Amino acid sequence: MAKNLSALDDLAACFGRLPGIGRRSAQRIAIYLAVNGGLSNDLEAALRKAGENLCCCSRCGSLTTPDADPCAICSDPSRDPDVLCVVESPSDVFLLENAGGYRGRYHVLMGRISPMGRQGPDSMRLDALRKRLDTEPIKEVVLALNSDVESEATAAYVRDMLADRPVRISRPAMGIPAGSGMAYSDPVTLARAIRGREPFAQ
Amino acid sequence: MAKNLSALDDLAACFGRLPGIGRRSAQRIAIYLAVNGGLSNDLEAALRKAGENLCCCSRCGSLTTPDADPCAICSDPSRDPDVLCVVESPSDVFLLENAGGYRGRYHVLMGRISPMGRQGPDSMRLDALRKRLDTEPIKEVVLALNSDVESEATAAYVRDMLADRPVRISRPAMGIPAGSGMAYSDPVTLARAIRGREPFAQ
Repeated sequence: MAKNLSALDDLAACFGRLPGIGRRSAQRIAIYLAVNGGLSNDLEAALRKAGENLCCCSRCGSLTTPDADPCAICSDPSRDPDVLCVVESPSDVFLLENAGGYRGRYHVLMGRISPMGRQGPDSMRLDALRKRLDTEPIKEVVLALNSDVESEATAAYVRDMLADRPVRISRPAMGIPAGSGMAYSDPVTLARAIRGREPFAQ
Repeated sequence: MAKNLSALDDLAACFGRLPGIGRRSAQRIAIYLAVNGGLSNDLEAALRKAGENLCCCSRCGSLTTPDADPCAICSDPSRDPDVLCVVESPSDVFLLENAGGYRGRYHVLMGRISPMGRQGPDSMRLDALRKRLDTEPIKEVVLALNSDVESEATAAYVRDMLADRPVRISRPAMGIPAGSGMAYSDPVTLARAIRGREPFAQ
Protein backbone atom coordinates (compact mmCIF):
# COMPACT_ATOMS: atom_id res chain seq x y z
CA MET A 1 0.00 0.00 0.00
CA ALA A 2 0.94 3.66 -0.27
CA LYS A 3 3.50 2.85 -2.93
CA ASN A 4 2.51 5.93 -4.91
CA LEU A 5 1.44 7.98 -1.91
CA SER A 6 4.86 9.50 -1.30
CA ALA A 7 3.27 12.84 -0.36
CA LEU A 8 1.53 11.09 2.52
CA ASP A 9 4.72 9.36 3.66
CA ASP A 10 6.65 12.65 3.53
CA LEU A 11 3.97 14.40 5.60
CA ALA A 12 3.96 11.58 8.16
CA ALA A 13 7.77 11.70 8.33
CA CYS A 14 7.64 15.44 9.13
CA PHE A 15 5.17 14.86 11.94
CA GLY A 16 7.33 12.04 13.27
CA ARG A 17 10.12 14.59 13.84
CA LEU A 18 7.97 16.61 16.25
CA PRO A 19 8.35 16.09 20.01
CA GLY A 20 5.99 13.50 21.51
CA ILE A 21 4.62 12.16 18.22
CA GLY A 22 5.40 8.53 17.39
CA ARG A 23 5.33 6.78 14.02
CA ARG A 24 1.73 5.58 14.23
CA SER A 25 0.38 8.91 15.48
CA ALA A 26 2.29 10.68 12.70
CA GLN A 27 0.65 8.54 10.03
CA ARG A 28 -2.77 8.98 11.60
CA ILE A 29 -2.35 12.77 11.65
CA ALA A 30 -1.07 12.84 8.05
CA ILE A 31 -4.11 10.90 6.82
CA TYR A 32 -6.42 13.12 8.87
CA LEU A 33 -4.93 16.22 7.24
CA ALA A 34 -5.07 14.70 3.76
CA VAL A 35 -8.81 14.18 4.24
CA ASN A 36 -9.46 17.51 6.00
CA GLY A 37 -8.13 19.99 3.45
CA GLY A 38 -9.41 23.02 5.35
CA LEU A 39 -7.40 22.23 8.46
CA SER A 40 -4.37 21.41 6.30
CA ASN A 41 -4.58 24.86 4.69
CA ASP A 42 -5.02 26.53 8.09
CA LEU A 43 -1.96 24.73 9.42
CA GLU A 44 0.11 25.65 6.35
CA ALA A 45 -0.88 29.32 6.74
CA ALA A 46 -0.17 29.24 10.50
CA LEU A 47 3.30 27.79 9.86
CA ARG A 48 4.06 30.50 7.30
CA LYS A 49 2.81 33.22 9.64
CA ALA A 50 4.84 31.79 12.53
CA GLY A 51 7.96 31.69 10.34
CA GLU A 52 7.50 35.34 9.39
CA ASN A 53 6.41 36.70 12.76
CA LEU A 54 8.39 34.78 15.37
CA CYS A 55 12.08 34.81 16.19
CA CYS A 56 14.32 34.18 19.18
CA CYS A 57 15.10 37.07 21.51
CA SER A 58 18.72 38.09 20.91
CA ARG A 59 19.24 38.43 24.66
CA CYS A 60 17.45 35.55 26.43
CA GLY A 61 16.77 33.20 23.48
CA SER A 62 13.05 32.84 24.15
CA LEU A 63 10.43 33.55 21.51
CA THR A 64 9.48 37.05 20.46
CA THR A 65 8.53 39.02 17.35
CA PRO A 66 11.10 40.72 15.08
CA ASP A 67 9.79 44.15 16.11
CA ALA A 68 10.12 43.37 19.84
CA ASP A 69 13.73 42.34 20.34
CA PRO A 70 14.75 42.12 23.20
CA CYS A 71 11.56 40.37 24.18
CA ALA A 72 8.82 41.67 26.49
CA ILE A 73 10.36 40.02 29.56
CA CYS A 74 13.92 41.21 28.87
CA SER A 75 12.76 44.79 28.32
CA ASP A 76 10.25 44.90 31.20
CA PRO A 77 11.77 47.29 33.79
CA SER A 78 9.62 45.76 36.56
CA ARG A 79 11.37 42.38 36.28
CA ASP A 80 14.11 41.79 38.83
CA PRO A 81 17.49 42.23 37.03
CA ASP A 82 19.32 40.42 39.87
CA VAL A 83 17.93 36.93 39.19
CA LEU A 84 18.49 34.94 36.00
CA CYS A 85 16.66 31.66 35.44
CA VAL A 86 18.51 29.29 33.08
CA VAL A 87 16.26 26.88 31.16
CA GLU A 88 16.70 24.39 28.33
CA SER A 89 14.11 25.58 25.83
CA PRO A 90 11.69 28.45 25.20
CA SER A 91 8.79 26.21 26.17
CA ASP A 92 10.20 26.14 29.73
CA VAL A 93 9.88 29.95 29.82
CA PHE A 94 6.20 29.62 28.91
CA LEU A 95 5.67 26.94 31.58
CA LEU A 96 7.26 29.06 34.32
CA GLU A 97 5.48 32.27 33.25
CA ASN A 98 2.21 30.36 33.20
CA ALA A 99 2.91 29.03 36.71
CA GLY A 100 3.58 32.60 37.88
CA GLY A 101 5.56 33.73 40.91
CA TYR A 102 8.93 34.29 39.21
CA ARG A 103 9.83 37.96 38.65
CA GLY A 104 13.41 37.67 37.38
CA ARG A 105 14.63 37.21 33.81
CA TYR A 106 15.47 34.13 31.72
CA HIS A 107 18.30 32.63 29.71
CA VAL A 108 17.48 29.80 27.28
CA LEU A 109 20.34 27.34 26.66
CA MET A 110 18.66 25.91 23.53
CA GLY A 111 19.52 22.34 24.43
CA ARG A 112 21.49 20.32 26.91
CA ILE A 113 24.58 18.17 26.96
CA SER A 114 23.57 14.93 25.27
CA PRO A 115 26.27 12.47 24.17
CA MET A 116 23.57 10.27 22.60
CA GLY A 117 22.09 13.24 20.72
CA ARG A 118 25.61 14.44 19.77
CA GLN A 119 25.06 17.71 21.57
CA GLY A 120 28.04 19.11 23.46
CA PRO A 121 28.44 22.33 25.43
CA ASP A 122 29.39 24.21 22.22
CA SER A 123 25.89 23.87 20.82
CA MET A 124 24.33 25.65 23.79
CA ARG A 125 24.08 29.41 24.44
CA LEU A 126 26.82 29.37 27.10
CA ASP A 127 28.96 32.18 25.67
CA ALA A 128 25.87 34.38 25.68
CA LEU A 129 25.29 33.42 29.34
CA ARG A 130 28.86 34.38 30.31
CA LYS A 131 28.49 37.69 28.48
CA ARG A 132 25.28 38.46 30.33
CA LEU A 133 26.98 37.78 33.67
CA ASP A 134 29.72 40.23 32.62
CA THR A 135 27.35 43.03 31.71
CA GLU A 136 24.16 42.58 33.78
CA PRO A 137 23.87 43.04 37.56
CA ILE A 138 23.03 39.35 38.11
CA LYS A 139 23.40 38.12 41.70
CA GLU A 140 21.64 34.74 41.43
CA VAL A 141 21.43 32.09 38.69
CA VAL A 142 18.56 29.59 39.02
CA LEU A 143 19.34 26.39 37.09
CA ALA A 144 15.77 25.33 36.20
CA LEU A 145 16.73 22.32 34.10
CA ASN A 146 14.95 19.00 34.04
CA SER A 147 15.89 16.19 36.39
CA ASP A 148 16.92 13.36 34.04
CA VAL A 149 20.55 12.32 33.63
CA GLU A 150 21.42 14.58 30.69
CA SER A 151 19.84 17.66 32.25
CA GLU A 152 21.52 16.96 35.59
CA ALA A 153 24.87 16.71 33.77
CA THR A 154 24.14 19.99 32.01
CA ALA A 155 23.24 21.67 35.31
CA ALA A 156 26.50 20.44 36.87
CA TYR A 157 28.46 21.68 33.84
CA VAL A 158 26.92 25.18 34.07
CA ARG A 159 27.46 25.25 37.86
CA ASP A 160 31.15 24.41 37.43
CA MET A 161 31.49 26.95 34.62
CA LEU A 162 30.17 29.67 36.91
CA ALA A 163 32.13 28.55 40.00
CA ASP A 164 34.54 31.52 39.93
CA ARG A 165 31.77 34.09 39.48
CA PRO A 166 30.37 36.05 42.43
CA VAL A 167 26.85 34.72 41.87
CA ARG A 168 24.64 32.50 43.99
CA ILE A 169 23.59 29.36 42.11
CA SER A 170 20.29 27.72 42.99
CA ARG A 171 17.82 25.24 41.59
CA PRO A 172 14.06 24.72 41.97
CA ALA A 173 12.97 22.80 45.05
CA MET A 174 12.43 19.06 44.63
CA GLY A 175 9.61 17.45 46.53
CA ILE A 176 6.18 15.93 46.56
CA PRO A 177 3.98 17.41 43.79
CA ALA A 178 0.97 19.47 44.83
CA GLY A 179 -2.16 17.37 45.16
CA SER A 180 -0.18 14.13 45.35
CA GLY A 181 0.62 11.85 48.23
CA MET A 182 3.81 10.29 49.60
CA ALA A 183 2.65 6.88 48.37
CA TYR A 184 2.91 8.07 44.76
CA SER A 185 6.42 9.54 45.05
CA ASP A 186 9.51 7.54 44.12
CA PRO A 187 12.22 7.06 46.79
CA VAL A 188 14.61 9.67 45.29
CA THR A 189 11.91 12.35 45.28
CA LEU A 190 10.82 11.40 48.79
CA ALA A 191 14.39 11.50 50.13
CA ARG A 192 14.94 14.94 48.62
CA ALA A 193 11.62 16.18 49.96
CA ILE A 194 12.55 15.13 53.52
CA ARG A 195 16.09 16.53 53.22
CA GLY A 196 14.72 19.83 51.94
CA ARG A 197 11.93 20.03 54.51
CA GLU A 198 10.51 23.49 55.15
CA PRO A 199 9.16 25.18 58.29
CA PHE A 200 5.42 24.69 58.56
CA ALA A 201 4.13 28.27 58.74
CA GLN A 202 1.33 28.85 61.20
CA MET B 1 3.05 36.26 28.36
CA ALA B 2 2.57 35.71 24.66
CA LYS B 3 0.35 38.75 24.44
CA ASN B 4 1.95 39.78 21.15
CA LEU B 5 2.79 36.24 20.03
CA SER B 6 -0.48 35.64 18.21
CA ALA B 7 1.33 33.69 15.47
CA LEU B 8 2.40 31.18 18.12
CA ASP B 9 -1.10 30.92 19.57
CA ASP B 10 -2.59 30.41 16.10
CA LEU B 11 -0.09 27.66 15.33
CA ALA B 12 -0.78 25.93 18.65
CA ALA B 13 -4.52 26.18 18.01
CA CYS B 14 -4.10 24.42 14.65
CA PHE B 15 -2.15 21.59 16.25
CA GLY B 16 -4.78 21.31 18.96
CA ARG B 17 -7.31 20.42 16.25
CA LEU B 18 -5.32 17.32 15.21
CA PRO B 19 -6.33 13.91 16.58
CA GLY B 20 -4.53 12.86 19.75
CA ILE B 21 -2.86 16.22 20.46
CA GLY B 22 -3.93 18.04 23.61
CA ARG B 23 -3.55 21.72 24.48
CA ARG B 24 -0.19 21.41 26.21
CA SER B 25 1.33 19.21 23.51
CA ALA B 26 0.07 21.63 20.87
CA GLN B 27 1.84 24.55 22.52
CA ARG B 28 5.03 22.55 22.99
CA ILE B 29 5.03 21.56 19.31
CA ALA B 30 4.32 25.13 18.17
CA ILE B 31 7.26 26.47 20.19
CA TYR B 32 9.49 23.65 18.90
CA LEU B 33 8.62 24.59 15.30
CA ALA B 34 9.11 28.31 15.94
CA VAL B 35 12.64 27.56 17.11
CA ASN B 36 13.40 24.92 14.44
CA GLY B 37 12.77 26.85 11.25
CA GLY B 38 14.09 24.08 9.01
CA LEU B 39 11.55 21.56 10.23
CA SER B 40 8.81 24.18 10.03
CA ASN B 41 9.68 24.80 6.37
CA ASP B 42 9.79 21.05 5.67
CA LEU B 43 6.37 20.60 7.24
CA GLU B 44 4.91 23.53 5.31
CA ALA B 45 6.23 22.08 2.04
CA ALA B 46 4.96 18.59 2.91
CA LEU B 47 1.49 19.98 3.64
CA ARG B 48 1.45 21.83 0.31
CA LYS B 49 2.64 18.71 -1.55
CA ALA B 50 0.04 16.55 0.19
CA GLY B 51 -2.70 19.04 -0.69
CA GLU B 52 -1.67 18.94 -4.34
CA ASN B 53 -0.96 15.22 -4.65
CA LEU B 54 -3.52 13.47 -2.47
CA CYS B 55 -7.26 13.11 -2.85
CA CYS B 56 -9.97 10.68 -1.84
CA CYS B 57 -10.76 7.78 -4.16
CA SER B 58 -14.09 8.50 -5.83
CA ARG B 59 -15.13 4.89 -5.31
CA CYS B 60 -13.98 3.74 -1.85
CA GLY B 61 -13.14 7.09 -0.23
CA SER B 62 -9.62 6.11 0.84
CA LEU B 63 -6.57 8.14 -0.10
CA THR B 64 -5.08 8.11 -3.56
CA THR B 65 -3.46 10.47 -6.06
CA PRO B 66 -5.46 12.51 -8.63
CA ASP B 67 -3.90 10.48 -11.48
CA ALA B 68 -4.88 7.16 -9.87
CA ASP B 69 -8.63 7.37 -9.29
CA PRO B 70 -10.09 4.81 -8.55
CA CYS B 71 -7.30 3.96 -6.14
CA ALA B 72 -4.79 1.11 -6.41
CA ILE B 73 -6.96 -1.23 -4.32
CA CYS B 74 -10.22 -0.47 -6.15
CA SER B 75 -8.57 -1.02 -9.55
CA ASP B 76 -6.52 -4.08 -8.56
CA PRO B 77 -8.09 -7.02 -10.45
CA SER B 78 -6.59 -9.52 -8.00
CA ARG B 79 -8.68 -8.14 -5.11
CA ASP B 80 -11.81 -10.13 -4.33
CA PRO B 81 -14.82 -8.12 -5.67
CA ASP B 82 -17.25 -10.17 -3.53
CA VAL B 83 -16.18 -8.79 -0.16
CA LEU B 84 -16.49 -5.16 0.90
CA CYS B 85 -15.00 -3.97 4.17
CA VAL B 86 -16.73 -0.88 5.58
CA VAL B 87 -14.51 1.33 7.77
CA GLU B 88 -14.82 4.74 9.42
CA SER B 89 -11.77 6.53 8.06
CA PRO B 90 -8.97 6.11 5.49
CA SER B 91 -6.52 5.43 8.32
CA ASP B 92 -8.44 2.19 9.03
CA VAL B 93 -7.70 1.08 5.46
CA PHE B 94 -3.98 1.62 6.10
CA LEU B 95 -4.18 -0.30 9.40
CA LEU B 96 -5.90 -3.29 7.79
CA GLU B 97 -3.61 -3.31 4.73
CA ASN B 98 -0.63 -3.15 7.04
CA ALA B 99 -1.96 -6.10 9.06
CA GLY B 100 -2.37 -8.11 5.84
CA GLY B 101 -4.67 -11.02 5.19
CA TYR B 102 -7.65 -9.15 3.73
CA ARG B 103 -8.01 -9.44 -0.04
CA GLY B 104 -11.38 -7.75 -0.63
CA ARG B 105 -12.11 -4.08 -1.22
CA TYR B 106 -12.98 -1.17 1.10
CA HIS B 107 -15.63 1.47 1.61
CA VAL B 108 -14.79 4.43 3.86
CA LEU B 109 -17.79 6.00 5.64
CA MET B 110 -15.85 9.18 6.53
CA GLY B 111 -17.28 9.33 10.00
CA ARG B 112 -19.80 7.71 12.27
CA ILE B 113 -23.08 8.60 13.88
CA SER B 114 -22.22 10.90 16.74
CA PRO B 115 -24.98 12.92 18.44
CA MET B 116 -22.35 14.67 20.58
CA GLY B 117 -20.27 15.54 17.50
CA ARG B 118 -23.42 16.55 15.59
CA GLN B 119 -22.79 13.91 12.93
CA GLY B 120 -25.83 12.10 11.61
CA PRO B 121 -26.15 9.40 8.93
CA ASP B 122 -26.37 12.09 6.22
CA SER B 123 -22.77 13.14 6.72
CA MET B 124 -21.47 9.63 5.96
CA ARG B 125 -20.90 8.03 2.56
CA LEU B 126 -23.99 5.81 2.82
CA ASP B 127 -25.53 6.70 -0.55
CA ALA B 128 -22.26 5.75 -2.20
CA LEU B 129 -22.36 2.44 -0.30
CA ARG B 130 -25.88 1.67 -1.53
CA LYS B 131 -24.85 2.54 -5.08
CA ARG B 132 -21.90 0.19 -4.89
CA LEU B 133 -24.14 -2.64 -3.68
CA ASP B 134 -26.39 -1.96 -6.69
CA THR B 135 -23.57 -2.10 -9.23
CA GLU B 136 -20.83 -4.32 -7.81
CA PRO B 137 -21.03 -8.09 -7.28
CA ILE B 138 -20.73 -7.77 -3.51
CA LYS B 139 -21.78 -10.85 -1.51
CA GLU B 140 -20.42 -9.93 1.92
CA VAL B 141 -20.11 -6.65 3.82
CA VAL B 142 -17.64 -6.64 6.73
CA LEU B 143 -18.48 -3.87 9.21
CA ALA B 144 -14.99 -3.16 10.56
CA LEU B 145 -15.94 -0.24 12.80
CA ASN B 146 -14.59 0.45 16.23
CA SER B 147 -16.20 -0.94 19.36
CA ASP B 148 -17.16 2.16 21.33
CA VAL B 149 -20.78 3.23 21.71
CA GLU B 150 -20.95 5.57 18.69
CA SER B 151 -19.28 3.09 16.36
CA GLU B 152 -21.52 0.26 17.58
CA ALA B 153 -24.55 2.46 16.86
CA THR B 154 -23.18 3.21 13.39
CA ALA B 155 -22.60 -0.49 12.71
CA ALA B 156 -26.18 -1.28 13.78
CA TYR B 157 -27.50 1.51 11.56
CA VAL B 158 -25.62 0.23 8.50
CA ARG B 159 -26.69 -3.36 9.27
CA ASP B 160 -30.38 -2.31 9.41
CA MET B 161 -29.97 -0.23 6.26
CA LEU B 162 -28.69 -3.30 4.40
CA ALA B 163 -31.22 -5.73 5.91
CA ASP B 164 -33.22 -6.13 2.69
CA ARG B 165 -30.14 -6.71 0.54
CA PRO B 166 -28.99 -10.21 -0.40
CA VAL B 167 -25.59 -9.73 1.26
CA ARG B 168 -24.01 -11.44 4.23
CA ILE B 169 -23.06 -8.95 6.94
CA SER B 170 -20.15 -9.76 9.21
CA ARG B 171 -17.81 -8.05 11.64
CA PRO B 172 -14.23 -8.74 12.78
CA ALA B 173 -13.87 -11.31 15.54
CA MET B 174 -13.69 -10.04 19.08
CA GLY B 175 -11.42 -11.78 21.51
CA ILE B 176 -8.22 -11.82 23.48
CA PRO B 177 -5.47 -9.80 21.75
CA ALA B 178 -2.42 -11.70 20.48
CA GLY B 179 0.35 -11.83 23.06
CA SER B 180 -2.02 -10.95 25.89
CA GLY B 181 -3.54 -13.02 28.65
CA MET B 182 -7.05 -13.52 29.97
CA ALA B 183 -6.15 -11.61 33.12
CA TYR B 184 -5.67 -8.43 31.06
CA SER B 185 -8.99 -8.67 29.19
CA ASP B 186 -12.09 -6.88 30.39
CA PRO B 187 -15.24 -8.98 31.10
CA VAL B 188 -17.04 -7.95 27.87
CA THR B 189 -14.08 -8.95 25.72
CA LEU B 190 -13.66 -12.21 27.63
CA ALA B 191 -17.35 -13.10 27.30
CA ARG B 192 -17.26 -12.48 23.56
CA ALA B 193 -14.05 -14.47 23.21
CA ILE B 194 -15.63 -17.49 24.92
CA ARG B 195 -18.88 -17.16 22.99
CA GLY B 196 -16.95 -16.93 19.72
CA ARG B 197 -14.58 -19.79 20.57
CA GLU B 198 -12.88 -21.50 17.62
CA PRO B 199 -11.84 -25.11 17.00
CA PHE B 200 -8.26 -25.71 18.11
CA ALA B 201 -6.58 -26.96 14.91
CA GLN B 202 -4.13 -29.82 15.40
